[in-house]
Amino acid sequence: MRFNVNREYLLKALMMVAKAVPQKADLPILQNVKMSLNEKGLELMGSDNNITICTRVPYMAGDVELIKNAKQGSTLVQCKLLLEIVRHSESEFIDFELIDNSILKISYGDVVNRPNTLRAEEYPEIDLNVKGATFEVKSAEFTKQIEQTAFAASTKETRPILTAVNLSAHGGLLTATATDTARLARKTMEIETEENFSINIPAKKLLDIVHSFEGEDVVSIAVSDKKAAFSFGNTVISTRLINGDYPNTKNIVPKTFNYYLEVNSREFLNAMDRVSLFGGVIKLIMTEDEVEMISRSTITGSANVKLSTFQFSGERLEISFNSAFVTDAIRAVASEDVTIAFIGEMKPFVVKNVKDDSIDMLITPLRS
Amino acid sequence: MRFNVNREYLLKALMMVAKAVPQKADLPILQNVKMSLNEKGLELMGSDNNITICTRVPYMAGDVELIKNAKQGSTLVQCKLLLEIVRHSESEFIDFELIDNSILKISYGDVVNRPNTLRAEEYPEIDLNVKGATFEVKSAEFTKQIEQTAFAASTKETRPILTAVNLSAHGGLLTATATDTARLARKTMEIETEENFSINIPAKKLLDIVHSFEGEDVVSIAVSDKKAAFSFGNTVISTRLINGDYPNTKNIVPKTFNYYLEVNSREFLNAMDRVSLFGGVIKLIMTEDEVEMISRSTITGSANVKLSTFQFSGERLEISFNSAFVTDAIRAVASEDVTIAFIGEMKPFVVKNVKDDSIDMLITPLRS
Repeated sequence: MRFNVNREYLLKALMMVAKAVPQKADLPILQNVKMSLNEKGLELMGSDNNITICTRVPYMAGDVELIKNAKQGSTLVQCKLLLEIVRHSESEFIDFELIDNSILKISYGDVVNRPNTLRAEEYPEIDLNVKGATFEVKSAEFTKQIEQTAFAASTKETRPILTAVNLSAHGGLLTATATDTARLARKTMEIETEENFSINIPAKKLLDIVHSFEGEDVVSIAVSDKKAAFSFGNTVISTRLINGDYPNTKNIVPKTFNYYLEVNSREFLNAMDRVSLFGGVIKLIMTEDEVEMISRSTITGSANVKLSTFQFSGERLEISFNSAFVTDAIRAVASEDVTIAFIGEMKPFVVKNVKDDSIDMLITPLRS
Repeated sequence: MRFNVNREYLLKALMMVAKAVPQKADLPILQNVKMSLNEKGLELMGSDNNITICTRVPYMAGDVELIKNAKQGSTLVQCKLLLEIVRHSESEFIDFELIDNSILKISYGDVVNRPNTLRAEEYPEIDLNVKGATFEVKSAEFTKQIEQTAFAASTKETRPILTAVNLSAHGGLLTATATDTARLARKTMEIETEENFSINIPAKKLLDIVHSFEGEDVVSIAVSDKKAAFSFGNTVISTRLINGDYPNTKNIVPKTFNYYLEVNSREFLNAMDRVSLFGGVIKLIMTEDEVEMISRSTITGSANVKLSTFQFSGERLEISFNSAFVTDAIRAVASEDVTIAFIGEMKPFVVKNVKDDSIDMLITPLRS
């Protein structure tokens, strides 16, 4: 294998695959990136066995030659080391030459690096093809859908299925749902597919994936019962799914309420931020004339704040909640004003943007 | 105790004392800040028993009133919590009132905080007075002296004295010395005192102290055989010393050499940075025609670079060293060009700025 490659394109591709390469791996071979120069260009693959990222530097970008003096071949080289070498280089092109199938000579300017390599055949066989429903989404819209839901997934491994975002398609609607049982976030968007499915993707991995889309307008998603693959530009990211049936949350969000509090999102977040210095549990005491927010810790003390602008309709209501949950929900709703709708003291309440029905944020209150 | 205080001045003072307050303390009472409102102003004290910082918000700054409605008194309040409360506030003045000697009511705008307090008498007695030699230094010059030496102190506690910077005064010269036995950094500056002393201040603490000087031109330093105190503006920082005799390093730096390598600092640092991707040990191979830098690891591979601009005088020389030590020394010397002077293959070498005799950087080579 031998080639001369544009540094900037190589660095971008390496940074992409490096996201999948584990720092410490049960299988040490996974700390390598697989480089293959074939008729399509320079293919790079990294994997931690759960997520696999494959991307390509093509021979040409429009009229610009990205790879010169090519002789095909493949090898494995330590991903972190290769990334550092390319990062530390500064010339426009970098020269690669595989020597004796054991050393990759990397040259630029007066510098020569000679990292040791392994044979490409030693890398595990990874099949990126997914046979199943395939559809396209606008990447910005899908990214927002995941950002508005993934935070509500559980971070505890006791019930692995709850660490996932459930993606389900039905009648041309794609619904993302995440819940840790104390709160739930759901967002729907329209997609163009006749297929119906329900899959569970680890929430943290899914966030990493959507944050890799940057710059691409459209992403093609393929799902089977074992994995999902996201294709955009010259890149494919595949992820394993979490097995099992996602809890039935379809009818969990109430439709009718007895109390409505309308507030300015920023002012409300600011007030929670201040009061929660004395612990994360906040009590709201609401009447039509006054809304007070209180937090109290037997060890450190207490704080309270009165909201200066609000609209409350209903009888006097006291309700306590985890301030982080309400903060996350208000941030996810992402509108200037937000309505919090309550049924009663110990009943789950919802945070919503009255102008957007596609998003549901449900929170269980705490005893106070 | 009751007062109304300018938020900005209070925040600055709190951030200063918070540097001394430990996150976790053997003595939990040290997680508090001691607040005393007396005839001089609002005094704040924080301590971890090694370092103590005391600073003051005066009643007036020029014509501007900083403290109003004052009623003297004192209390202890959790430093981290108080700092967060003041940080989260936004009005120009904040109102403080000590209630029943157990709660500090802190009010601004519509927000009221009520952190629990302890009685000021429960705080350990700390004497900030130092009876001993006292002299003044220009803070910028002293800060630079410490920055140019402290990095060479040991980070291992096996010989505590080597974790210190030794400050010694003799004949109007103040010398700072630090060594971990594999390298040594020394810098001298003139001071106006007749006194002679030699004290050992923990290097990390001393760096923190000099980085607190910001904005003050002159610092007054008092030293005894138990502690040192640094006074500037409204602040005093005192630190314990490390007991014991500092190793005699007076005649350790050679004066005559057989080989001189002159290089551009930035280019040399850049080359070391690239080559050391394969491990921190670098071998220099120098002749009058070519200077090559090599690093080699049996596991990861090797790298080499040829310097494009240099001047070398002497026979061919090979020498290996810890690249971090040479990097630190070149950074400390802080000149555009730097001269590395060698005696021979296994002899300590020096990194120097030929225009500045006040600084010595000595490094022991490694076997290669």
